[in-house]
Amino acid sequence: MALPRDSSFDEECMRLAIRASEQALEAGNMPFGATLARGGAVLHVAQNHQLTGADLMAHAEVELVREVSARHGADALKGTTVYASGEPCAMCSGTMFWAGVTRVVFAATQDDIIAALGGAALPIRTAAVLAEAEPAVLVEGDEQQRPAAVAVLQRFAQHAKGRT
Amino acid sequence: MALPRDSSFDEECMRLAIRASEQALEAGNMPFGATLARGGAVLHVAQNHQLTGADLMAHAEVELVREVSARHGADALKGTTVYASGEPCAMCSGTMFWAGVTRVVFAATQDDIIAALGGAALPIRTAAVLAEAEPAVLVEGDEQQRPAAVAVLQRFAQHAKGRT
Repeated sequence: MALPRDSSFDEECMRLAIRASEQALEAGNMPFGATLARGGAVLHVAQNHQLTGADLMAHAEVELVREVSARHGADALKGTTVYASGEPCAMCSGTMFWAGVTRVVFAATQDDIIAALGGAALPIRTAAVLAEAEPAVLVEGDEQQRPAAVAVLQRFAQHAKGRT
Repeated sequence: MALPRDSSFDEECMRLAIRASEQALEAGNMPFGATLARGGAVLHVAQNHQLTGADLMAHAEVELVREVSARHGADALKGTTVYASGEPCAMCSGTMFWAGVTRVVFAATQDDIIAALGGAALPIRTAAVLAEAEPAVLVEGDEQQRPAAVAVLQRFAQHAKGRT
């Protein structure tokens, strides 16, 4: 049932997610972004709003689900792929599952995120959270764009250090 | 650091969660409820609003976090206990972790929920999601009130069958 993968489209979607992570950083939020796509079309790009929204749930992937389902209904995310600049946490993994997302691609890993940002940590891997999900969700790492995503996390950490 | 446990208070909190699960069922929602408590005081009781709210994220535990943090700020759930009528899914487990909940008690298990309700399933256990969480979250099952929570799930399943 899997559609043929277009790796240049995958790359572009991840580039958009990493750009959204930079925009989140510049807006004063946690440095994460996510792109939603299906059938070779980008449907939406979202970014983290945790700090400016004073909303502990406003991770990029949750924002993606909220924004798309508010606009297009709860079924609008079925069969989609999410490209996340950082490996989704358990909250986000569960949210994407209930929304019907069937493929997740991430750049920076949980270890990258924890090493760069510190603080409270929920390190379970996305693939472990979703391992027994039914219907199944495919989880993939994007090694090629991982350094670009990690660079944004490190910029955030430097900014944070500059403020203390 | 753990406060001494008052088992009759724990029982009362779970009773409130199970009552909320019945109210959710009667309101046409998925049959789940949750109670928030700290230091021997009940802070809030929430119920599922997935169906009436057309909101795939409106599980009882997410509603609890949303309602309390909207009213009292993002720090209001730090160091609390959540009593859930059904074992929290990965989305809810992650949400409670980010909110600062430090203890989770559930009655019906993931297996009970899947056996009664069927459908899409994200069966990872709450304790597995939170196993490496830092700060740690204590996860406990309430075997004594599990049958009462399961009975509500079965009433829901019977209602659902009656409608098809």
